Amino acid sequence: MAPAQVAAAPVQEQCNGGAIGNGISGGGELRGGAVRCHPALSTEWKASIRGVVGELLRAAGTDRSLISLGVGDASSHACFRRGGEFAADAVADAARSGIFDCYAPSHGFPAARRAVADYLSAGARHRTRDADVFLTVGGSGAITAITTVLGGAPGANILLPRPGFAPYEAACEIVGAEPRFYDLLPRRGWEADLAGVRALADGATAAIVVINPNNPCGAVYSAQHLFQIAETARELGIPVIADEVYAHMVFGGSKFVPMASFAHITPVISIGALSKRFMVPGWRLGWLAFCDPSGALKHVRTATEMLLNVTSGPASLVQAAVPNILSNGHNEFHRNVVNLLESAADTLYRRVSQIEALQCYSKPHGSMFMMVEVNSSLLFGVQDDLEFARELIKEESVLVLPGSVIGLKNWIRIFFGAPTSVILEACDRIEAFCQRRAVQVKLLKKKF
Amino acid sequence: MAPAQVAAAPVQEQCNGGAIGNGISGGGELRGGAVRCHPALSTEWKASIRGVVGELLRAAGTDRSLISLGVGDASSHACFRRGGEFAADAVADAARSGIFDCYAPSHGFPAARRAVADYLSAGARHRTRDADVFLTVGGSGAITAITTVLGGAPGANILLPRPGFAPYEAACEIVGAEPRFYDLLPRRGWEADLAGVRALADGATAAIVVINPNNPCGAVYSAQHLFQIAETARELGIPVIADEVYAHMVFGGSKFVPMASFAHITPVISIGALSKRFMVPGWRLGWLAFCDPSGALKHVRTATEMLLNVTSGPASLVQAAVPNILSNGHNEFHRNVVNLLESAADTLYRRVSQIEALQCYSKPHGSMFMMVEVNSSLLFGVQDDLEFARELIKEESVLVLPGSVIGLKNWIRIFFGAPTSVILEACDRIEAFCQRRAVQVKLLKKKF
Repeated sequence: MAPAQVAAAPVQEQCNGGAIGNGISGGGELRGGAVRCHPALSTEWKASIRGVVGELLRAAGTDRSLISLGVGDASSHACFRRGGEFAADAVADAARSGIFDCYAPSHGFPAARRAVADYLSAGARHRTRDADVFLTVGGSGAITAITTVLGGAPGANILLPRPGFAPYEAACEIVGAEPRFYDLLPRRGWEADLAGVRALADGATAAIVVINPNNPCGAVYSAQHLFQIAETARELGIPVIADEVYAHMVFGGSKFVPMASFAHITPVISIGALSKRFMVPGWRLGWLAFCDPSGALKHVRTATEMLLNVTSGPASLVQAAVPNILSNGHNEFHRNVVNLLESAADTLYRRVSQIEALQCYSKPHGSMFMMVEVNSSLLFGVQDDLEFARELIKEESVLVLPGSVIGLKNWIRIFFGAPTSVILEACDRIEAFCQRRAVQVKLLKKKF
Repeated sequence: MAPAQVAAAPVQEQCNGGAIGNGISGGGELRGGAVRCHPALSTEWKASIRGVVGELLRAAGTDRSLISLGVGDASSHACFRRGGEFAADAVADAARSGIFDCYAPSHGFPAARRAVADYLSAGARHRTRDADVFLTVGGSGAITAITTVLGGAPGANILLPRPGFAPYEAACEIVGAEPRFYDLLPRRGWEADLAGVRALADGATAAIVVINPNNPCGAVYSAQHLFQIAETARELGIPVIADEVYAHMVFGGSKFVPMASFAHITPVISIGALSKRFMVPGWRLGWLAFCDPSGALKHVRTATEMLLNVTSGPASLVQAAVPNILSNGHNEFHRNVVNLLESAADTLYRRVSQIEALQCYSKPHGSMFMMVEVNSSLLFGVQDDLEFARELIKEESVLVLPGSVIGLKNWIRIFFGAPTSVILEACDRIEAFCQRRAVQVKLLKKKF
């Protein structure tokens, strides 16, 4: 209690490895010891997507305009926004009305929850009730919330796909849950390795996360595979967290099937958002939706309610716009987006197939991402995906995400939410880079 | 690993006390065991402000219109919004521009961070740099973030004021930090009991939270007292988390002094938001601002950056409006708000002083709340603050917050962010209630 005890406190385990304020004169230092931080937030922690992207951007060459195919944001491309003004108009109207500036209820404005419930229920096997919908600060906020609820039980583990979406792992580490990774199989359309899932699970497994349409692979799972996932979860006694932020963003003949269609097999907690489908990722309007016909997740719902009672929620002005955004068809807008994505995906897949050092095993049918394997033995001066990404952005001003950040070393994730012309330009630059590095390899081989 | 092991998992410690799905036939139940939740999110957990308010609202009488003096939201009263259209206009313009729908950078749009830095630096002793500002999902998001960073160190404790703001305690419990409560002294203008602070702190104390202007007490601390707090924190080797969401909302001759004025004594992490001062609590735009001249909190800043890299942020459209909102004076708007608050506070204090069963020891000089002690021995059928609040809303349709929720049993928190006419009406009803219950006590005393 006395300052002397504070002075004796260990100064190791500093979040950045440095000792702070040991007797340094002058004011304001923390004398006698340093305040420690959450162990998952030290610099030794695994890189985040945004962290790695930040580093790559700082390495970018400056002689040409940057082509950014790293993160999932197509909103800066005008072609994707065609006919999408209804969303902005709805928020502007809400702002000018002056009646939506108040605190929204913890779980969301009733009208917004109802709109999400109706949106999810349309054509669905099981109706989603208003009370089963909880608005969150984007899809990311939904991830943080459900991971806190389910992963916060002592000793819990959560099954995550690999490759996957890095914030799930980060959320686990922050709440103290153990992430366990099951494989997605590149040569089987990136389907989940369910035998691996069964081997990973145990009595402390809280849930399995399934991302469909899939980020980062672009896969769209068949009803049959989703059924198999549900059956596996049922055998293991766990719910499915179905991350469907790319819901309906499918093409190439694939069909989006909500995991909640199988909620009679095992309970499903769906994650969704306005972000991707409506091209407004910055608006941070997402949701958790419980589909739980048997009531087995009642306590999880209650815990979620309690968490949202003490944490922040999505902006009231955006909530106010949700009924307008979700309730009307806006079919032309959606069709345009899907057509552009299909064209971009086809182009990207075709061009990558023409580049020897790169390989894509399955053409994307949904989401806005494709995974590409890098054969670094064919590329001089490129040991792995991190070097590939760094050298590429330095020399060609093209940003892609190193697969290591999302669980697959020697792969890269390429975003295709861009006009086809931009995809073509990016592929030309990637191809030029690979050819340059291939030539160097050939020269080296010739020498010896 | 095998389903049999899952079947053996314990079904105790259910979040809601019930066993789930033990061999119930039919589909969708979690066979063999139930998924557990974060222990802090069970129904046995302490009540949240929103939870208790929800219960009280359900008990409200229906014969008269409800007067809601429970939570800190004045935005529904037109008089507080006079001249405030600039905020809504800024958001509406941002929405219609179509250029702010993208993901904002993890720590906020640079222009917004700069605007907050300038706003905090105006007339301040130490300049706040753009890089020291982190935008959060409201003041609540700032609380969650800094508590996760500092409270997540194993075994950490955080010193919180009592009475206080319940989400701090909730945030501690979610991250696994121990909340330790120091007293605010009602007969000393609700100043902090610094001897008590020193007695509570030890080598695992991560920070002290100070709320000024104070919620729930309405106190505005003098520069002298803030200096004493800073000195105490320095002796203990801890930073101050200065919750200043009610910054500048002061009257009655008091002056708002930012805690960061004393950052040369001990480092200060300030919490602020648009919510209260600009009457837009639902917009969820807040910030953490580090004032750390000695650099002692460098690792805490880094940890905060990392956390914000993997969690959600405030809505981009609101961020886009921040420069407009903060950079211009808007003096008439602010003056109007403060005048209304002063009038409401004066009225509330005067009327409460006239009610025998209620006592307020210091007139509020800031924020939008006042703490009132309830002498339940003078009130028939009222054992404590919870009963007072429940019976009051049932019989008189006036909502106040039971002090138990924020650490002071037998006290109530009354919000005065309302027109003076509403405060007068509320006080008439409260007085009528107290008089009725006092009469019953007198009658009972007469009988015996």
